[in-house]
Amino acid sequence: MGKEVVLAPGERLDDLLTHQLHIIQSREVFSFSMDAVLLARFAAVPPRGRILDLCSGNGVIPLLLTTRTKALIDAVEIQPRLAGMARRSIAANGLEDRITVIEGDLREFHKRQGHGIYDVVTVNPPYMPAGTGDQNENEHVAMARHERNGTLDEIVAACARLVRAGGRVAMVHRPSRLVEILETMRKWKLEPKRMRFVHPNAEAEANMVLIEATRDGKPELRMLPPLIVYNAQHQYNEEIMQIYYGNRAEPAASQKEKTSP
Amino acid sequence: MGKEVVLAPGERLDDLLTHQLHIIQSREVFSFSMDAVLLARFAAVPPRGRILDLCSGNGVIPLLLTTRTKALIDAVEIQPRLAGMARRSIAANGLEDRITVIEGDLREFHKRQGHGIYDVVTVNPPYMPAGTGDQNENEHVAMARHERNGTLDEIVAACARLVRAGGRVAMVHRPSRLVEILETMRKWKLEPKRMRFVHPNAEAEANMVLIEATRDGKPELRMLPPLIVYNAQHQYNEEIMQIYYGNRAEPAASQKEKTSP
Repeated sequence: MGKEVVLAPGERLDDLLTHQLHIIQSREVFSFSMDAVLLARFAAVPPRGRILDLCSGNGVIPLLLTTRTKALIDAVEIQPRLAGMARRSIAANGLEDRITVIEGDLREFHKRQGHGIYDVVTVNPPYMPAGTGDQNENEHVAMARHERNGTLDEIVAACARLVRAGGRVAMVHRPSRLVEILETMRKWKLEPKRMRFVHPNAEAEANMVLIEATRDGKPELRMLPPLIVYNAQHQYNEEIMQIYYGNRAEPAASQKEKTSP
Repeated sequence: MGKEVVLAPGERLDDLLTHQLHIIQSREVFSFSMDAVLLARFAAVPPRGRILDLCSGNGVIPLLLTTRTKALIDAVEIQPRLAGMARRSIAANGLEDRITVIEGDLREFHKRQGHGIYDVVTVNPPYMPAGTGDQNENEHVAMARHERNGTLDEIVAACARLVRAGGRVAMVHRPSRLVEILETMRKWKLEPKRMRFVHPNAEAEANMVLIEATRDGKPELRMLPPLIVYNAQHQYNEEIMQIYYGNRAEPAASQKEKTSP
């Protein structure tokens, strides 16, 4: 770190646990979830190139991706408050040269940026259609959870427009909407190629699905081993421990990884 | 048993392991797979009513279903040799009053039987499009593996025509074709509602998917816990043991189940 961080009321500076990263969060406005952490690990990323993160929130996915790639990352977030948090977190980690936050509407982003320019697009969209669920949540939370600024169809369309031919789109979502997601991806020429379900424990139904699609890809899906979060002793499974804490325990190895060719 | 069984050359009488059922198999013509056994357990069946099994082969699914329901079961198989094996197996088990084998083409079956008359349709279709894969296999094996007598679209269409509104279709297939399967089901008004992946072991990609769809159902998918076949010691997991041998060890319990209200 070593940078000065300015926190707004209600905000806190959290440890991202991996690679000594830090992130600004706020219970009232936005805190990242395990969904984002798992997506940042699931997405296949090139060593260099250009990556886009849509519905970026406080920028957790771009921050985590910097530990896996030297690619330049653009992060699009429609809420000014969240875009500001993301920008300050990026500055706090000294990553301004690798992540750019754009405050804007993903439905319009191609007009500014052009079509087919990203190698990879990641997205952790709102899970619920607009107008469903708890109507008492605050504006920020409601916008993160509900499709107020773009339906699933509009979000998938944006991913398909912005990724290059042969490039990949990685999404995390709820299994309950899987059929609609796959159908919508195909509609927009994103062929689902790799999928993984996340189960709270080995006996539980999945509550999360990770999907990677290839723009103009050939149909053939690989279904990865299930990701089980808690073991029978109600502790994080080994893989989750590795994802959350893996690089923290071994700063030397992490350093080595960074300097390898 | 206690019935006389006539075996053709190359045929053998196998133990179905559960409920003292027996089945005629032949390495040259048809032997059932774990896929069929898992589908027969996965499908939700009513205690009574009418069930249809398409691509029935030697009748393994109808035979297994008789241990779970008193419904009347129709089994459609296009290959005369297999339909004959199924009929003799059914006779060998004394189940002629509960299972009827129809030798015929599933694409034409509604013309004889009418539309929307079954509560449940089960199907373990050929997994590969016609013209792909090993061209040296014999006619019987090739027809069981390849879509020579109906494409996926035609098979799903047949399921959708023959099941009643609100009735269920249960299918086993390969995960590599999942997107096409789900899309085709939706096209024919079969809404996927319950899905389960089968993995050879906890670290392996899935090689089988069980899908249950409801005719005219409301979109919302449940993703069941993964079914892991082998444990870390390379032995069948507990659930597989239960499915294969569960009822054999406890004939008394099985008897009680049959007479409970």
